[in-house]
Amino acid sequence: MAEKITARSVDYSQWYIDIVLNAKLADYSPVKGCMVIRPRGYAIWERLRGELDRRFKETGHQNAYFPMFIPMSFLQKEAEHVEGFSPELAVVTHGGGEKLEEPLVVRPTSETIIWSKYRDWIQSWRDLPLLYNQWANVVRWEKRTRLFLRTAEFLWQEGHTAHETKAEAEAETAQMLEVYRKFAEEYLCLPVIAGRKSDSEKFAGAVETYSIEAMMQDKKALQAGTSHFLGQNFAKAFDVQYQTREGSLDYVWASSWGVSTRLIGAIIMTHSDDKGLVLPPSLAQDELVIVPIFKSDNKASVMEYANKAFGLFKAEGLRVVIDSDDSQSPGWKFAEWEMRGVPIRVEAGPKDVASASVVMVRRDSGEKVQVKLEEAPAMAKELLKRMQKELLEKARTFREANTKDVRNMDDILAFYGKEIVAKNQPADDGESHEGTSEAKGGFARGLWCGSRDCEARLKAELKVTIRNLPSGMQDNCSGACCLCGASAKHMAIFARSY
Amino acid sequence: MAEKITARSVDYSQWYIDIVLNAKLADYSPVKGCMVIRPRGYAIWERLRGELDRRFKETGHQNAYFPMFIPMSFLQKEAEHVEGFSPELAVVTHGGGEKLEEPLVVRPTSETIIWSKYRDWIQSWRDLPLLYNQWANVVRWEKRTRLFLRTAEFLWQEGHTAHETKAEAEAETAQMLEVYRKFAEEYLCLPVIAGRKSDSEKFAGAVETYSIEAMMQDKKALQAGTSHFLGQNFAKAFDVQYQTREGSLDYVWASSWGVSTRLIGAIIMTHSDDKGLVLPPSLAQDELVIVPIFKSDNKASVMEYANKAFGLFKAEGLRVVIDSDDSQSPGWKFAEWEMRGVPIRVEAGPKDVASASVVMVRRDSGEKVQVKLEEAPAMAKELLKRMQKELLEKARTFREANTKDVRNMDDILAFYGKEIVAKNQPADDGESHEGTSEAKGGFARGLWCGSRDCEARLKAELKVTIRNLPSGMQDNCSGACCLCGASAKHMAIFARSY
Repeated sequence: MAEKITARSVDYSQWYIDIVLNAKLADYSPVKGCMVIRPRGYAIWERLRGELDRRFKETGHQNAYFPMFIPMSFLQKEAEHVEGFSPELAVVTHGGGEKLEEPLVVRPTSETIIWSKYRDWIQSWRDLPLLYNQWANVVRWEKRTRLFLRTAEFLWQEGHTAHETKAEAEAETAQMLEVYRKFAEEYLCLPVIAGRKSDSEKFAGAVETYSIEAMMQDKKALQAGTSHFLGQNFAKAFDVQYQTREGSLDYVWASSWGVSTRLIGAIIMTHSDDKGLVLPPSLAQDELVIVPIFKSDNKASVMEYANKAFGLFKAEGLRVVIDSDDSQSPGWKFAEWEMRGVPIRVEAGPKDVASASVVMVRRDSGEKVQVKLEEAPAMAKELLKRMQKELLEKARTFREANTKDVRNMDDILAFYGKEIVAKNQPADDGESHEGTSEAKGGFARGLWCGSRDCEARLKAELKVTIRNLPSGMQDNCSGACCLCGASAKHMAIFARSY
Repeated sequence: MAEKITARSVDYSQWYIDIVLNAKLADYSPVKGCMVIRPRGYAIWERLRGELDRRFKETGHQNAYFPMFIPMSFLQKEAEHVEGFSPELAVVTHGGGEKLEEPLVVRPTSETIIWSKYRDWIQSWRDLPLLYNQWANVVRWEKRTRLFLRTAEFLWQEGHTAHETKAEAEAETAQMLEVYRKFAEEYLCLPVIAGRKSDSEKFAGAVETYSIEAMMQDKKALQAGTSHFLGQNFAKAFDVQYQTREGSLDYVWASSWGVSTRLIGAIIMTHSDDKGLVLPPSLAQDELVIVPIFKSDNKASVMEYANKAFGLFKAEGLRVVIDSDDSQSPGWKFAEWEMRGVPIRVEAGPKDVASASVVMVRRDSGEKVQVKLEEAPAMAKELLKRMQKELLEKARTFREANTKDVRNMDDILAFYGKEIVAKNQPADDGESHEGTSEAKGGFARGLWCGSRDCEARLKAELKVTIRNLPSGMQDNCSGACCLCGASAKHMAIFARSY
């Protein structure tokens, strides 16, 4: 039986973990900080990956696979890169029973190993662009972890592209950010804000980092994907020069971009409720579950009817299962399938048999419709389509309701409430519990002077950071920085974040 | 331009490496023993994986993902398992800048970490069976490596199932062997011999190991997949007991099974020729390449025609590309696309335009047909279908022609030729070059007494091992062991192997 889920209003962090564990999406690993992705969680990843991979290929990218072991010296070739990743490395020192001459790092990201090969493959402008992507596991040794959101090992994709010109690499960086934005909104129902990261939040080794940022139900931000313009940094570090169309030699321009299993955490935290998982229909392994409602004297006729319904849905290409387990009551099954996040429950009992109809219930809104059996597949498609649309709208409405324009520090303090900081101390068990009551605040939108000091002070005082400088809002940024009052340069989105 | 490929008759090992590198399937890694899978090689893996995954799901399996790091102590819980894998382990000793309390092993296979979790998930017979599979990278530190065939890190799938009864686990082991056999033959065009491994060749920790064995063009065997009946070994090692239907406690029964990127090596070595890669159409990213043949005065009309042909093929769902690069001659392009292994070349020149036809050439047999343009898509499908069938037949014919029934040691010595041993010494460069001239021998089929001593002597003297005891041939094994003359128990397939 489905275990009880802690209510969001009681303990948001515990609610999240309860859903992950009770919906059997993931589980803890014997190795601290790693996770086991269980079949129901992995099925979400498979659907997400399939769709994203399709979109990558549609935009001309190819998949490849690079070794997970990287010589330690490779990371050191790019000064900012090694500084950024050193604290998080897992290091292999022994192989085949012997101590290795040079320690190997388990990839935290693959720029270095990939650019060491690009050197072999790129001689001339004719070899460019290289538009490669890789689906892989990576390791970043984290002290404080949370299933899906932050784990030592995680699954992700990392695109690594090489271009003739700066403009091309910048265009690729922008294109992939847009691929992520549309994918997040259309497929995951996650409304996101696309924009540029501040310098202090850039990827280690990038010239510019862009991100998409989503708001969770506790009003905190979650960075859901990043796209980096790497300039010629890695080409210089690995001496990757190409013969230009004019016959001279120049360093190659680069981008990289990635999303990870963290997205599953974002999906859970955006859509789910106190009854369990809510999934966008696009991501659901099963779109419909048929729950036959019978007693011993009418079991045969109800099951026959339910099987007929199953056949009709199946024939229309719907992903449907039937729960014919007779050791559990319909009520238990309703709760169980709500926990699992199946988008539509189809109830078929003796009254439905008599009226040649079924009852369909939407997981997210509870909307209930009764339709004639022959109209059920078309109605199911209609409900799924609406659910996909409305989940996005609902999340967007929530975000807008929790976004505030701020002009100065008073606005910011009022929005976030200074007392919340004390509740955000790290717990001692390695799992993070960031705030057990509903957080104040949300996204603050305000002008920023561009100073790192302002950023640092805000972070220290309120644990609030600049999420990004949203695209399309950077043209009229005259006015006073909401943090220090100096002349502003950017419009920024501020928030607490995962 | 395509580099020259060493002929098989000159140096078979070099021929193989030439194809892998020149067809850009894979490349060496900066870390010795690892490999980079380039887009054209990875595309083969993606198709192979997609089809096999479909077959796994069709037989009721689900995908999951377990951590790649395994505590060293886990391996030690199963005595044979740790003994078998210890020499090949990569060991992580440091994480996040600190020395780890317990070293972590990078998975060489995942039985131990998976069974440690099965303990949490299995309480009762109602929780069984668990039919899980994982697609992952694994590491086995090898001294002598060869691209695809044997690399320190490789990609694979590993199925791990848990069952109530011995019979069920045995049936699963047999079922997956049969899934592999059919997949190898139908999809990869690899004829294989399915059978049980001798005790000395079993997986470390298995009760029985079964394999499918293919013959390469140098007449050596390649183990292309394995399925293990694990008995209760891992359940006992990790104390995984379940409540039976009768209410008592019993250990869970297990199977595991896997295939890897090694299959790509097998495909290359089975089908390719001295011009380059030959791929079964099922695996080809592009089934057809259109090569327009034009001069400057007829380029426009030829290109228009070629594009029309492209549209017709595409409309019929065929995977087609057009090579309109005008910096290369048609002859160069023919050689290049032969190297890449595209199953059908479509030639479209001015004469074809005039006669409203195209010429199609099969990559494997060189068969050439001229057909009217409107009939070309149907003809292409026909040719691809025949090619898929005939590649399997050709490989099977080759294997049968190089399989000999042997009665005694004289037969065996005559078949393999004793002098070949001297040529098979390991090279010093870490890459293996096993025999540079065409090997004698092939598969020897003979009776075996079951003694490890006979096996060991044969291996020491001729580098020949028992590949497996073929299924369906174990019923009438009376007679004398072909190695020692004692009373035989099994029919065995003997061969040199990769």
